[in-house]
Amino acid sequence: MSDSFNLDFDRTRRLGFPEVIYGASKPVDALAGILDAYRQRQLPALVTKMQPEKAKVLKRHFPDSLYDEASGAFLLDASQAKPSGEPQIGILSAGTSDVPIVNEAYYTLSFLNVASERINDIGIAGIHRLLDRVESLKRFRALIVVAGFEGALPTAVGGLLPQPIIAVPASVGYGVAAGGHVALNTMLASCANGITVVNIDNGYGAAMAAYRILRLVDGAS
Amino acid sequence: MSDSFNLDFDRTRRLGFPEVIYGASKPVDALAGILDAYRQRQLPALVTKMQPEKAKVLKRHFPDSLYDEASGAFLLDASQAKPSGEPQIGILSAGTSDVPIVNEAYYTLSFLNVASERINDIGIAGIHRLLDRVESLKRFRALIVVAGFEGALPTAVGGLLPQPIIAVPASVGYGVAAGGHVALNTMLASCANGITVVNIDNGYGAAMAAYRILRLVDGAS
Amino acid sequence: MSDSFNLDFDRTRRLGFPEVIYGASKPVDALAGILDAYRQRQLPALVTKMQPEKAKVLKRHFPDSLYDEASGAFLLDASQAKPSGEPQIGILSAGTSDVPIVNEAYYTLSFLNVASERINDIGIAGIHRLLDRVESLKRFRALIVVAGFEGALPTAVGGLLPQPIIAVPASVGYGVAAGGHVALNTMLASCANGITVVNIDNGYGAAMAAYRILRLVDGAS
Amino acid sequence: MSDSFNLDFDRTRRLGFPEVIYGASKPVDALAGILDAYRQRQLPALVTKMQPEKAKVLKRHFPDSLYDEASGAFLLDASQAKPSGEPQIGILSAGTSDVPIVNEAYYTLSFLNVASERINDIGIAGIHRLLDRVESLKRFRALIVVAGFEGALPTAVGGLLPQPIIAVPASVGYGVAAGGHVALNTMLASCANGITVVNIDNGYGAAMAAYRILRLVDGAS
Amino acid sequence: MSDSFNLDFDRTRRLGFPEVIYGASKPVDALAGILDAYRQRQLPALVTKMQPEKAKVLKRHFPDSLYDEASGAFLLDASQAKPSGEPQIGILSAGTSDVPIVNEAYYTLSFLNVASERINDIGIAGIHRLLDRVESLKRFRALIVVAGFEGALPTAVGGLLPQPIIAVPASVGYGVAAGGHVALNTMLASCANGITVVNIDNGYGAAMAAYRILRLVDGAS
Amino acid sequence: MSDSFNLDFDRTRRLGFPEVIYGASKPVDALAGILDAYRQRQLPALVTKMQPEKAKVLKRHFPDSLYDEASGAFLLDASQAKPSGEPQIGILSAGTSDVPIVNEAYYTLSFLNVASERINDIGIAGIHRLLDRVESLKRFRALIVVAGFEGALPTAVGGLLPQPIIAVPASVGYGVAAGGHVALNTMLASCANGITVVNIDNGYGAAMAAYRILRLVDGAS
Amino acid sequence: MSDSFNLDFDRTRRLGFPEVIYGASKPVDALAGILDAYRQRQLPALVTKMQPEKAKVLKRHFPDSLYDEASGAFLLDASQAKPSGEPQIGILSAGTSDVPIVNEAYYTLSFLNVASERINDIGIAGIHRLLDRVESLKRFRALIVVAGFEGALPTAVGGLLPQPIIAVPASVGYGVAAGGHVALNTMLASCANGITVVNIDNGYGAAMAAYRILRLVDGAS
Amino acid sequence: MSDSFNLDFDRTRRLGFPEVIYGASKPVDALAGILDAYRQRQLPALVTKMQPEKAKVLKRHFPDSLYDEASGAFLLDASQAKPSGEPQIGILSAGTSDVPIVNEAYYTLSFLNVASERINDIGIAGIHRLLDRVESLKRFRALIVVAGFEGALPTAVGGLLPQPIIAVPASVGYGVAAGGHVALNTMLASCANGITVVNIDNGYGAAMAAYRILRLVDGAS
Repeated sequence: MSDSFNLDFDRTRRLGFPEVIYGASKPVDALAGILDAYRQRQLPALVTKMQPEKAKVLKRHFPDSLYDEASGAFLLDASQAKPSGEPQIGILSAGTSDVPIVNEAYYTLSFLNVASERINDIGIAGIHRLLDRVESLKRFRALIVVAGFEGALPTAVGGLLPQPIIAVPASVGYGVAAGGHVALNTMLASCANGITVVNIDNGYGAAMAAYRILRLVDGAS
Repeated sequence: MSDSFNLDFDRTRRLGFPEVIYGASKPVDALAGILDAYRQRQLPALVTKMQPEKAKVLKRHFPDSLYDEASGAFLLDASQAKPSGEPQIGILSAGTSDVPIVNEAYYTLSFLNVASERINDIGIAGIHRLLDRVESLKRFRALIVVAGFEGALPTAVGGLLPQPIIAVPASVGYGVAAGGHVALNTMLASCANGITVVNIDNGYGAAMAAYRILRLVDGAS
Repeated sequence: MSDSFNLDFDRTRRLGFPEVIYGASKPVDALAGILDAYRQRQLPALVTKMQPEKAKVLKRHFPDSLYDEASGAFLLDASQAKPSGEPQIGILSAGTSDVPIVNEAYYTLSFLNVASERINDIGIAGIHRLLDRVESLKRFRALIVVAGFEGALPTAVGGLLPQPIIAVPASVGYGVAAGGHVALNTMLASCANGITVVNIDNGYGAAMAAYRILRLVDGAS
Repeated sequence: MSDSFNLDFDRTRRLGFPEVIYGASKPVDALAGILDAYRQRQLPALVTKMQPEKAKVLKRHFPDSLYDEASGAFLLDASQAKPSGEPQIGILSAGTSDVPIVNEAYYTLSFLNVASERINDIGIAGIHRLLDRVESLKRFRALIVVAGFEGALPTAVGGLLPQPIIAVPASVGYGVAAGGHVALNTMLASCANGITVVNIDNGYGAAMAAYRILRLVDGAS
Repeated sequence: MSDSFNLDFDRTRRLGFPEVIYGASKPVDALAGILDAYRQRQLPALVTKMQPEKAKVLKRHFPDSLYDEASGAFLLDASQAKPSGEPQIGILSAGTSDVPIVNEAYYTLSFLNVASERINDIGIAGIHRLLDRVESLKRFRALIVVAGFEGALPTAVGGLLPQPIIAVPASVGYGVAAGGHVALNTMLASCANGITVVNIDNGYGAAMAAYRILRLVDGAS
Repeated sequence: MSDSFNLDFDRTRRLGFPEVIYGASKPVDALAGILDAYRQRQLPALVTKMQPEKAKVLKRHFPDSLYDEASGAFLLDASQAKPSGEPQIGILSAGTSDVPIVNEAYYTLSFLNVASERINDIGIAGIHRLLDRVESLKRFRALIVVAGFEGALPTAVGGLLPQPIIAVPASVGYGVAAGGHVALNTMLASCANGITVVNIDNGYGAAMAAYRILRLVDGAS
Repeated sequence: MSDSFNLDFDRTRRLGFPEVIYGASKPVDALAGILDAYRQRQLPALVTKMQPEKAKVLKRHFPDSLYDEASGAFLLDASQAKPSGEPQIGILSAGTSDVPIVNEAYYTLSFLNVASERINDIGIAGIHRLLDRVESLKRFRALIVVAGFEGALPTAVGGLLPQPIIAVPASVGYGVAAGGHVALNTMLASCANGITVVNIDNGYGAAMAAYRILRLVDGAS
Repeated sequence: MSDSFNLDFDRTRRLGFPEVIYGASKPVDALAGILDAYRQRQLPALVTKMQPEKAKVLKRHFPDSLYDEASGAFLLDASQAKPSGEPQIGILSAGTSDVPIVNEAYYTLSFLNVASERINDIGIAGIHRLLDRVESLKRFRALIVVAGFEGALPTAVGGLLPQPIIAVPASVGYGVAAGGHVALNTMLASCANGITVVNIDNGYGAAMAAYRILRLVDGAS
């Protein structure tokens, strides 16, 4: 039949992690249908970048769900929101305006049962805020670093800390910084060694990249 | 005194990996001076993106060095070129035109004493070339995937394999693909989960990112 | 008289296919006037990318019409919506977010009395969804392939299937993918042989290009 | 073994047309190796966008080859250059500066054993040059239309002729037109129905797209 | 005193034509203040690109004014809207979506006491609509040609008619055509001789440019 | 604890000027929390680019505050709005549409206890408006020059006056000028000697740059 | 026959001015062939943007020709280079780096038998150079104004003089100004009334636009 | 007379600093003529961005001159190259590749009789190199900060030091960083307070901006 959807339920077996649903451009009816398919299979589900008006409808359908308005993340099963154990991943951000992206990474990791810790507002215009934390940041296995405007925080972090670093540009700023392209390019052009980058506002992708690394470490230990 | 350079010899102690020298925009005299400083300290050194005419001069100065013309990589100590042991990292590429970037990643890993393997010419216009290799690619700890033109190879790889994946756009192509920006954006916009990206033509950065991951695994095991 | 419009009623005689009306930037009064002119001549008419609030007004004026909200397509004569016969054209898409463009192509082909079939949600991040369908896709005379985000689906299709392929980039995605330019450029830069491309979101143009091909085949048979 | 190439010799069986070699970014040694592999299998080969200095070397290696300097097309077997039969495809261009792209399409079609005809210098600043030819152009099965600068020729052709039309933007022009992006965008944004577009300077891709259509017609007749 | 405005009432003496007020980014209070200053001096005034909600307020303040909603033009003195005499300027457009810009040019010329004529919907996808009018268009002293999408109309006009031609790109279209930049670049890159261009959507500027030419002719006659 | 903010209260000691709060992308609750932290420390505070709906809420919380709707500047302590003494800085603008940026610079200087003077509407299309003021402008220690559209005012000022000049592009204009990028680039490319530039719409940054200069002068005198 | 060229010899009858040959992308053999065709018909000819190495060859073929190295203009008949009579058009430029474009306009006007005068190096960073000439510039019927870098000269001229003004951006400058796009956009966004613009470096087009105006005036007088 | 140049010898009287000559796009003959005019008036002169082959010719003409090959700066009077006194301005750079721009600023300041000091290679990937120098950098009246690649150095400097800071993006880098636009945008979008920016590679402009500040301080003391 034409016009149906083809969910990739097989992905966990193939790759070790489940499909996640992009919520911004799907109508609420389509989202409800997809989530029902997950529920019937008793699978957990995560929708990203869902608008508040859709969440209002879906919360009624799925009362056990959790919706984070800042990021638009929607967990079908609210009990996944706080994984136990020591935080494995540090999620750093340059300013409080980056919280939506920080939270998307946080809830994606939670959905994957990985504990993480959020450390906001340590941009390099006040570099001491980062310098004071260098030692304590060494406890994380990998770092996700979110920044809008000029996006220079990952470069400074990369020069001070040896872990895998996943930089996430945020669409925060105005003038030349509008849309997050300056932060993206700054991160790609960084002089610091071995920083990697994901799409603008892609907190979800950063969390997935961190998860690929954690799987490797846990498999290797 | 003004006008001297400030080499970051301390980086290895701080981060666990040494500084690498960007060769494209430095005059040959400056490069010779920097390499002499490394030699005096009996430190290994790697210069990237060095033009052939500079290499000709420096080979005479440093007869034990190795120069790879395709990538412009210059190893002060040629004996570093072939690290022993099983390859840890797979370096995949879409076409033979990507060899310069593949080689930059290869020689950077060699400089860091990491063995890697190069698998060229498996772009998705002939997808069977990738499908036939999926099982054998699972032996690598991480994958570096290089592609120019439309840059779709990392997306296909990311949908088939669970390891950390570092995508490198190559400045190969013409028309809209000139300069590598299409490949870069394709990789950033990829629907595959958790792919990370480095700057166009940055084989060196991809190798460094892989090294950060390997250090974590080895430290964790 | 100044300020009137000049409809190209002669186009069918000249080219073999009628003019179609672009609805997004015309006020509802102008659209009503144009549709009245068609009705008086007992000609069928198709309006594309019409906003819902305009459709509400026009539905009252023209009760026999059909409006597809996803795509904004408006058929003056609803009986045209389901042409009979075997589907000639396959309309493939990478994700459910591409449905608006898929539907625009579908209703344009219907308006031209061509049956087509929609196959959604087979993007290359889960390549098996495409591989499983290769044989069954060979029955179509031509393929329209819609994709947003990184837009890599047409490249994979072009490497597996020999028919004429018309790629349509969709303005689905965020960050670098916003607006559909990445998908457009990926399709233009594709390494697969002989893929052609139309404007972002131009499901209508893709249908017209397919129709030019079908006319040739039917004329030649 | 690392660093070898993986030629897609299987493509003809799979798709009905052979792989073509992109010559611009491969060193002459690599090209010679690839062509030797074709010769050993007694397969024909086409290299596109090859620079004159490489052609000089390869002509010596392969004396039966043909090199067209304007386009950079290199046919391993010169006897393929003039296919017999009535021309099936018309290749139109706006100005004499478009000849390199016209010729790339011409030699690619020849390589595929399809006769075509070149009609240059009929841009719309002197529209009568096109109008005078409308009737005679109806004899072609499909039209490839090449234009640089403002790239408006395909729009005029598309409003006058009913065949499949493949527009090719040429990187001819200066100021805003430099690089061919204006011509590309003009073609994509065209108000004429059902025009399709390939990458800037991609005469090869246009020929391949025409070939996909011809195969369909011949199979259907 | 700080924060006041400095109107250029002297412009008519200096240049022979008055200042016109840009309405889009000024608050309605500021516009009312400026228009009061004109009224007190018994000078006519034209505001361009004024939003409807501002016009509603100002119509109450200035009951003798005229507001054209399509273009946002606001004439302080409605009696200026229809100048007498034969039309001197032809304002051509490619489609009915261009009416807002056509009208801005029309009302600006009216404000300058120049009669003009609007001829819409003669884009080159149906070239006969233009060809049929070539002779009758020769009666105008200069032509303003408005087009969105691919913007090719001025090139065709410039190849057929000898008058001064002022091309105006319109921000009509979607995909690559969004914002009018394609039309702008097409006009700048035009192969037709001696076409000049103004900013996207700048019907006002085109009218002013035409007026400079008319002043020269009238002074010269 | 995760998810808190890290205010840089130390900045005044370190640099001699306090942190300023960017209001556009922070929710009103976060802003209220930050302002409470300042109030508790009896520190003054400035928020920039705050939307009117947020200001309405915060005015109730902080009745002694001042909100300038044009610029979005919010002073926690309204008594700071009019510093005493002769104006040290001249803030020039090309048109009345630039007032939002002019006011942001004005209130930032006020917050820093620096008197300034605003001189609007002296763009170079009526160059006499600037020429008449050259002598009187020499009394300022530095000039902030705001312009949208083509942004040419700073070039003319820089050719006539010897003081430090800080140019601020404004996002005022349409077509190519939309977003302020043309004004920005004009200022950067200026042929006038020694003009410096800040981000589009960054009246705050211009004021801060002027303040750095004033501190130097006052320290030096 | 395929592959020939179609010269538009009819253009003079149709439009009143001859075709001009774009020399940059045509091989010298093609140019020689085209010029021979003109010579045989005893028609004058102008080639623009011809490279010096081509000119050397063609000077030998056509000894009565004139080549201006700065602009690349090539007149088949050198006697056309200095038309008699009072200069009708003033060609102004901002700096001596603009001479190539100034000369292209000058020689095109000469080819059309129109006398013009060149006034270089009066950019607005030293505005008095323009102010001192305002009265004497009033004697020209129209003004061509060339500027690179920030391109602000036409705005200042347009605010001081009432004639038709054709602005030509020059590809002179570095950084953001490289390629002439800043100058182009400045001219398009100009606040001065009724300035028109041609493509970057298009001195030829500016001359043609001036010629269209002169024909109108002469016909009208 | 047409085609001469109009030097702005009056600028020193008007502004307090002389005109400087842009050398990149002027032919060597024009430069020699301009320098002769300065010599005859016994005025000093500075040419910027002069190519080595021009310098070779001019050194013979003007044996007392000095040419710095790295920056292309040419001082008519070599004795100006080392001004006496304590350095007033610090010129910082991120890497040794920035030396050309550093030197252009240095020689421009020297030409203006201002001593400065160059401190290279202190980019933020090794932040300690900057932190170690914070105290000693406080002795400069203003700082010029040059950086290519991601351009983050000025942000870090601006967060640590209170002086006027003029940031100069350098066209050093590859991939997204090519041409210096990333560094430019990073500097404009900087979160550090009151940083100002000049055009890419504009070491000269940065020096002039510093000089405007010094004149103010010296006049004020």
